Amino acid sequence: MNSEKLILVTNDDSVSAKGIHSLVEVARQFGRVVVVAPDKPQSGMGHAITIGHPLRLQKNNLFGTIEAYACSGTPVDCVKLAIYELFKGKPDLILSGFNHGENTSTNVLYSGTMSAAIEGAMEGIPSIGFSLANYSADADFEATQYFSEKIISEAFKNEFPKYVCLNVNVPNLKKEAIKGIKITQQAHAFWADSFLKREDQFGKNYYWLTGEFSDVDQRENTDLQAMKEGFVSIVPTQFDLTAYNLMNDFKKWKL
Amino acid sequence: MNSEKLILVTNDDSVSAKGIHSLVEVARQFGRVVVVAPDKPQSGMGHAITIGHPLRLQKNNLFGTIEAYACSGTPVDCVKLAIYELFKGKPDLILSGFNHGENTSTNVLYSGTMSAAIEGAMEGIPSIGFSLANYSADADFEATQYFSEKIISEAFKNEFPKYVCLNVNVPNLKKEAIKGIKITQQAHAFWADSFLKREDQFGKNYYWLTGEFSDVDQRENTDLQAMKEGFVSIVPTQFDLTAYNLMNDFKKWKL
Repeated sequence: MNSEKLILVTNDDSVSAKGIHSLVEVARQFGRVVVVAPDKPQSGMGHAITIGHPLRLQKNNLFGTIEAYACSGTPVDCVKLAIYELFKGKPDLILSGFNHGENTSTNVLYSGTMSAAIEGAMEGIPSIGFSLANYSADADFEATQYFSEKIISEAFKNEFPKYVCLNVNVPNLKKEAIKGIKITQQAHAFWADSFLKREDQFGKNYYWLTGEFSDVDQRENTDLQAMKEGFVSIVPTQFDLTAYNLMNDFKKWKL
Repeated sequence: MNSEKLILVTNDDSVSAKGIHSLVEVARQFGRVVVVAPDKPQSGMGHAITIGHPLRLQKNNLFGTIEAYACSGTPVDCVKLAIYELFKGKPDLILSGFNHGENTSTNVLYSGTMSAAIEGAMEGIPSIGFSLANYSADADFEATQYFSEKIISEAFKNEFPKYVCLNVNVPNLKKEAIKGIKITQQAHAFWADSFLKREDQFGKNYYWLTGEFSDVDQRENTDLQAMKEGFVSIVPTQFDLTAYNLMNDFKKWKL
């Protein structure tokens, strides 16, 4: 690298999460890092943006010498505020994570971490979301650090195709037990949801989302399959949702 | 139809919005309608789900004889609660809208209305989101009612491909001025965002999202193009975000 790269780091677990601090340790080797991340957990916020009320942006020193801001909005709000208000321009790379918990399969749609990366792709900025298959607050990110360093290094060495981002998932294994990295496709798997239904102290019902994840995809080379086999999974992820292969089916309707 | 169809109606503008009442008037002609919609506006919530705290579901009589519930969560929460708590099974059709404002192009990712339909597609349920290119609270939904009736009728007459939903956008024109219906693709267009930056009464800054939409897509047959020409646009919309055509590009990286 001849000129210093500008790297935006964000996440959905908030500026306090261990994961984003572990990611910053890796990212700072590659250029000037600026952190803009939510001031509170924003898991499951998907591609939500804040339009009905204003946002706050508070500078903090949680990351030592690294310039860092806590934002009152969603992960996508963080990306927009960084580009349009802080930088008044585009960073060279957006890194989102390390997420506490995997974002394989259809979880990509619910994930604030991945939505921040997808927002980056929409801006034409090379963007990567990293997730570790471990939900605990003190998860061990050593393997995630090792593989993210390799991936970020390659992202700068190669031409990063425009309007796409990477969904990287790391199995919850020691570095030495991980077999390598695979380019995969988003598995067709779903949450069989259920709700914990209880009565509150005032006699009114409340409902709390829970559920079990079920993988129904028989194809080879899905992200879930790679993870099960002990590989890091990378899904090249786009934001064009058009089902091109079904357009002709609908053209037969008498509309 | 021999047996009565069960139709879930939701939206992101809340149970109070004119649009959902206009949609229910159409939907009730096709079967038994149950409304589960947010108790407050949820525009821009994308595919957000509520995981950190419980949800409320309050029966109401805003829709006369139609069974209706206001939910404290997001549009996707509404769909999940309807399927897993109220119905304990899948409806025959999910209708989301009528949205006050269009959801063409990349807006599909930010739209709570469309995310509810995409959630339906993930469940394998025929699902359609309808949006009118008019943001005003008292928008005229006459044309939207006319075209949605045609589309819903065809949805029941034909085989609805699984794991896909429809993103229907109606131009803000009188019914007679609309030229017809086109099956289109999601335009590659973006928000050039900016933030209104102001100081509050305590001397602290706040930031409020604004922006201008710019269509950079030169392809024919995009949703934006169809709308400009005065057609209703239907984009078949999927939830597999894998960029299959770029997988080989990334396989060349030294990972």
